[in-house]
This record gives sequence, C-alpha cells and structure tokens, in this order.
Amino acid sequence: MERVFATIITIGDELLIGQVIDTNSAWMAQALNKIGISVIRRVAVGDQWDEIWDALDEESKKASIILITGGLGPTADDITKPLLCKYFGGKMVIHQPTLDHVTNIFETILNKPMIERNRKQAEVPDNCTVLKNEKGTAPGMLFKKAEKTFISLPGVPHEMKWLMKQEVLPYIQSVFQTSFIEHRTLHTFGIGESFLAEKIAETENALPAHIKLAYLPNYGLVRLRLSASGNNHTLILQEIEAHFEALKKAVGHYLISDTDIPMEKIVGNLLIKNKSTLSTAESCTGGYIAHLLTSIPGASEFYKGSIVSYANEIKQQLLHVSENVLLNQGAVSEATVSKMASECLMMMNTDFCIAVSGIMGPEGGTLEKPVGTVWMAVANKNVVKTQLIHLRYDRERNISLTAMNALNFLRMLIVDNP
Amino acid sequence: MERVFATIITIGDELLIGQVIDTNSAWMAQALNKIGISVIRRVAVGDQWDEIWDALDEESKKASIILITGGLGPTADDITKPLLCKYFGGKMVIHQPTLDHVTNIFETILNKPMIERNRKQAEVPDNCTVLKNEKGTAPGMLFKKAEKTFISLPGVPHEMKWLMKQEVLPYIQSVFQTSFIEHRTLHTFGIGESFLAEKIAETENALPAHIKLAYLPNYGLVRLRLSASGNNHTLILQEIEAHFEALKKAVGHYLISDTDIPMEKIVGNLLIKNKSTLSTAESCTGGYIAHLLTSIPGASEFYKGSIVSYANEIKQQLLHVSENVLLNQGAVSEATVSKMASECLMMMNTDFCIAVSGIMGPEGGTLEKPVGTVWMAVANKNVVKTQLIHLRYDRERNISLTAMNALNFLRMLIVDNP
Repeated sequence: MERVFATIITIGDELLIGQVIDTNSAWMAQALNKIGISVIRRVAVGDQWDEIWDALDEESKKASIILITGGLGPTADDITKPLLCKYFGGKMVIHQPTLDHVTNIFETILNKPMIERNRKQAEVPDNCTVLKNEKGTAPGMLFKKAEKTFISLPGVPHEMKWLMKQEVLPYIQSVFQTSFIEHRTLHTFGIGESFLAEKIAETENALPAHIKLAYLPNYGLVRLRLSASGNNHTLILQEIEAHFEALKKAVGHYLISDTDIPMEKIVGNLLIKNKSTLSTAESCTGGYIAHLLTSIPGASEFYKGSIVSYANEIKQQLLHVSENVLLNQGAVSEATVSKMASECLMMMNTDFCIAVSGIMGPEGGTLEKPVGTVWMAVANKNVVKTQLIHLRYDRERNISLTAMNALNFLRMLIVDNP
Repeated sequence: MERVFATIITIGDELLIGQVIDTNSAWMAQALNKIGISVIRRVAVGDQWDEIWDALDEESKKASIILITGGLGPTADDITKPLLCKYFGGKMVIHQPTLDHVTNIFETILNKPMIERNRKQAEVPDNCTVLKNEKGTAPGMLFKKAEKTFISLPGVPHEMKWLMKQEVLPYIQSVFQTSFIEHRTLHTFGIGESFLAEKIAETENALPAHIKLAYLPNYGLVRLRLSASGNNHTLILQEIEAHFEALKKAVGHYLISDTDIPMEKIVGNLLIKNKSTLSTAESCTGGYIAHLLTSIPGASEFYKGSIVSYANEIKQQLLHVSENVLLNQGAVSEATVSKMASECLMMMNTDFCIAVSGIMGPEGGTLEKPVGTVWMAVANKNVVKTQLIHLRYDRERNISLTAMNALNFLRMLIVDNP
C-alpha cells in the first residue's frame, strides 16, 4: 500500500478578504487523516473563474483526491457549478431526485413557495455522480478525470460534515487502499514549548523516522502529538504505544491528559468519575467558563450553574462580598474571589466551585493592578485555595487563559482532594 | 496604479491533520485588504522541505507579496528558517539585537535561564531584513528575490498580529502603490440567502462591474458585502455609498445593522445609546450569551451579569421558578422563561433581561419537545415577551443560534420600547 494524498480547495471571496474563518478544512483534514489519507495541501481561492480553474489543474497534479468546498449556494456570486461542468466537459441537466428533495424542503419543512433560484440548485453536470445532501439544497458532486477523484461539497459546515460522513468517507475507504496512520496526543500545562522540548529531548531523539512528533502550543497548554504511519497496522500500533508511554514519562507532572480532549472535558470527566458537582462564580471571564463546561454534551451530570457577577453590585448583593472588601481590597483581590467561591458553593450546593476576578483589558488597568492581573479561587466544602496570575495578552486571549488556568487549578484541587 | 496581489503561505503539519484552525490567514487577509492589497490565494503546507520550497516557487509566480507564517518556533519540527536561508542563498548568522532581546525576555520577564534552543532563535539568514518581534522570541524576516517581496512571520497569533501592525503593513504601504478598495457590509436577520437574493435582485443587477456583492450567511444572519475597487478614491467612495444606500433600502426591515459588527455589539451599542442595562438568565446557552456580551471591551457600561441556571434546582432556588411549573410545564416552557426573565430583571435591577431555556442536543429531546426546542423571553419593567423557536442543528450551532435569536429578540424589544 502506498500513501494516498488529498488536497482541499476552498472557494469564496470571503476567505480572501478574511471575513470568515475557514473551519471546514481543519475538520475535513482530521476526518481524512483518520482513514489514512494524508492531506498534502490546502488552498483557498476567490470566486474567480481562472483562479478556480488553475487550482483544479495544479492541485490534481499533487494529489489523487481533490476535495472542493464552497461556491455552491443559490446566489449570484457562486460560479463553481457551471465551472465544474465545463472543466469536466459535461452539460447541465435537472437531477430529478435533487429537485424532489429541494421541493420537499420548501413545501414541507420551510413552508415557503420555491423560487427559480432554488430550482437551479437541482441542476447538475450530467457527468458527475450526485451525492445527496439531506441537510440542505445544494447536492455534492463527484467527478473522475485522468485517474483523479474530484469531490465538490457545499461550504455550509453542517452540510459539508453530513456529506463527508454519509458519502465521501465511505466512498474513499471503499476505493483507495491506504497506509495506516496512528496519532497519539497528550496535553501539558504550565511549561513553555522550548522548556518542554529540552525536557523530552532524549525521548524525541529516540523516535524512528516514521514516527513524527509535533508541538501544538495554545492558551497555556502545549499539546504533543506523535504520528506514525506504515503498512503493518499491528506493528504501527505497538511502536506508537511504546513511544507514547515514554513520552508521557518524560513529560512528568506537566501531563494533564493523555487523550486529545480539551481542558473543560478533562475536568468534566474527573468530576463525573468522582460523582462530584461544580458551580462557578465568574467576573472577568463573564460566563466563558460556564460556556466551556456546558459545551460538553451531558454537562448537567456535573455542572449546576454560574453566577456571572460582572458588576460589583452583583458581587455584593448575590455573592455577599462585603462593601468593605470591595472598597479596600477591590473587586480583583484574594478576599473577593475567596468569598465568591465559598458563597457560590453554598448557594448552588455543589462539591466544588471556581471563582475568578481580573482585569482583561484593554482598559481598566492601574499601576498596582495592571491589565492581566487575575485572582482565582477554587473551593470545596473544606478548603478555599487562591492563586494570583499575571497575563500579558489581548482581551480575548486573557479571557481564554484565565479560564484554562482556573480549570487547571480546579483539576489540581480535585486530584488532591477527590 | 495597478492592483497589487499577495498570497499567504501557512506552514505546519498541524494544519494538514486539522488539529488547529487557521485564524491567522483571515486576520492577515483583512488587514491587507484594508490597505488595498488583494489576497489572491492562501495555501497551507506541512513541515516538509519540498512542499514549502515548491509553494514559495509557485506562489511567487502569482503575487508580488508572499507572506509566510508558522514554522519558526524553537522546537525540532520547525524547518522554515533554514529553508528560507537556502532558498534565498544566504547563510545563518547570529543577529545581535535579537539575541539581546531574547536574552532579556528570559532574564527579566520569564526569570528563567536561557537554553541553547532559544539562542538559536536569534540566528537569521544574513540576506534578510530582520523585523523585531517584541511579543516573542522568533523574529520576522523580509527577503527580496526577482522583484518579489517575501515576509516570514511567526505563527503565534498575537506575535504575528503585532509584527503585521508594527512592521509589515507600514512597509507595504510605503513601497507599493495600490488601487483603492472599499467595502461596505450590512447585516440581515430572519431571512434566508435565496429569499434575500430574490428581494434585492434589482439592486444587485444594477451594480457596475467593479462593484461586487457577496452573501455571507452565518448563524441565522446573512451579511451582504459590497466591494468596490478603482484608482479614483473619491469616485469609488461616492459610488459605493450610493449603491450601499440602495441595498439597505432593498433589504428593508430585515436590516439589523449597516456596519460590520457582531450581533452582541449591535445590542450593546443600542443599550449604551439608551443608557440602559442588561442582565441574562441562561439555561441552555450555559453562559454563552453572557460571554458574547462581555467579549466587548467596556461591556460593564451596560451589562451587569447572568444567572446561569443549568440545573433545575438553580432555576427553582435562585430564580424562583415554581416546582409546579417545572413539573407540569417543564424547564423548557413559556412559564419557566417568563419567570426567569422577570426574576433576574428584579434581582439584578436592570432595565432589560434575556432568558432562554431549550434542548440543545444531542440527547434530551422528547417527542413533544424535540432537540432544538427553545423558549426565549425578553423583559423590561413593563413587559415580558416570549417566543418559541425550533432549531435543527448540532449542539454547538444550536447554542450559537439560540444566542443570536435571543439577542435579536431583545434588539426588537429595545427598538420598540427604548
């Protein structure tokens, strides 16, 4: 088996003027990797005939599978479908099952009359295989040319994902013989990329050529990913497991998880395992910690709620932080977060509570408490622990880093006092 | 003046296996567009020598400016710097100001001993112009080859952004004569892309060739963007303003904003303008509405806080939703969200309050209340309004759409009852 390469072409002016962030490519790359297809390049081009045409020419020189997303909507800026029709030498015809499907969406689900523009979505080049899109009106299309497979999908994320899962991935697996790729990822917290590299140098140097190590730093965490590829699946699995164990050992107590799940899920799983509950009392993160935790399906198993006390009067009235503390020590102080945590723990009757208060910027800093000053507290029924951190970034990053630090602070409390 | 084209090369295996989402390219594209540089392509390649080399060759055929991000970190998977050195025929030398800067970061800020790996970051090819990176240890580098400008930047977003603002954009503006590009964007809510297209068809057809219209649908909103380019700036401005006014008229009451700001900011600005305050009582959105609102710098001017009542007992104890209502009508009901809104309004003493309760999925749906069922309430001191919506997506999208719908519901209440 040899490696099979894919390339992803994303179409849309909005990508080139930066008005939307391309999340599709990452999702597609992940899905392809899991079935052993290596994505070799990703290209974004605008809604320009020549640019799209050239990209099809060029990318098909580099890969066997060319995935195309975007440019299939019902509006006038979408030129992809007629272009594909011409590129593969077909002519446009009405595809009856798609027309029935689109008609049904309008008549039964949307309860609106269908317009000519929507009828057009049922037109496809006569030389493609139509991939039925149950989640929307624009169908997927599969073309073959000179041994290469071209697959065009709508750019709307949930439609693209549905088509990938239902049609594209099963098709690719049935047609291509791929080599095996295995990934193992661990998460570290509290150590910078270069110090981590120093710490694990020996383990890294011992890796064979077909096992690669990548450093993925993000928001206080550094993820380490091992990727092994080869034709003997059993051997690959044995090797990657052995090197992954060595890596975990080398990372030592900076290891917070040996699976690739986000911090909020690491904490959620710990709480579920211990049958414990959590509440939060948030000031500077403004509900972001609650949002992270409730993004997890089934969060109600461990999470009860949050008092987002953004204004000081809410800290006073709902969380009973005294006027005296607010006046003399301030909203960003050890006394404030301690009180927030212990009160919220009681009010929500949970086993654990996180409280944070800080200055996220860009305004609001003082000489004594500059932007990035954050007090955190974590509490259970027996103890309230506090910590002061200093961040140095913009508002968005400061909010994320505060959440990550607070969740890790709680994680340590749970590990020590389950 | 002719149009100046740029292309963006992003380097990193993590992009090709989909482990990170590329947010840098969108930011860079936006920044370049603002100064009249058209981004013609974006390409992502892995940490592979040949792939990077080929991308430099190919992209420089298509554009005058080639921006490169990523691959400059201190760890072993980064090969970009030696490659650039060879590509441009230089040799590696220690750059003393960078060494001083890196040393200072370690000795003064991080208070850690510097390691050899970090010293290496001060090495640069001797034929580049070094761009000082005050936000990190990896410097930017500018190369010239055959009339083309190549600029390499670190991939860490806040370092890249700082270097773009301080060094790259001013340099490009000083060297390239660019044609003018003007964009105008409006937001609509509550109308699908194809119906909107139908509604504005006449206005769209009246656009001259050098003014383009793009549809940017996202989470219940469709944004419409006009882009005009040309050499006569005064004329361009006149034209785009006239067509933008016509577009706003054509959109009618679906228009929610004629500037390109997110929904939470539209609502925030309205509240600030009316000197009104807001609180939220969130169940299914789990703090996401609070997070959106507090992402805005200066949110404390209008936002006081949230009761995230994820568990029913919190709805009962803190927001006084009666056991009777929870048992007979359920947590997802008109009676529940009405009570949540009116109680929270009182407790937080705000002028307005939003309350939401729904089933976000993937679990928790019933025949009577399937996944996607959401009750929303908005209240002021005189009235509580409620609305039932049905969403059909995954958890993440359902949470976002609930937030957007609830914010728009509040917006309508404010506009009607300032």
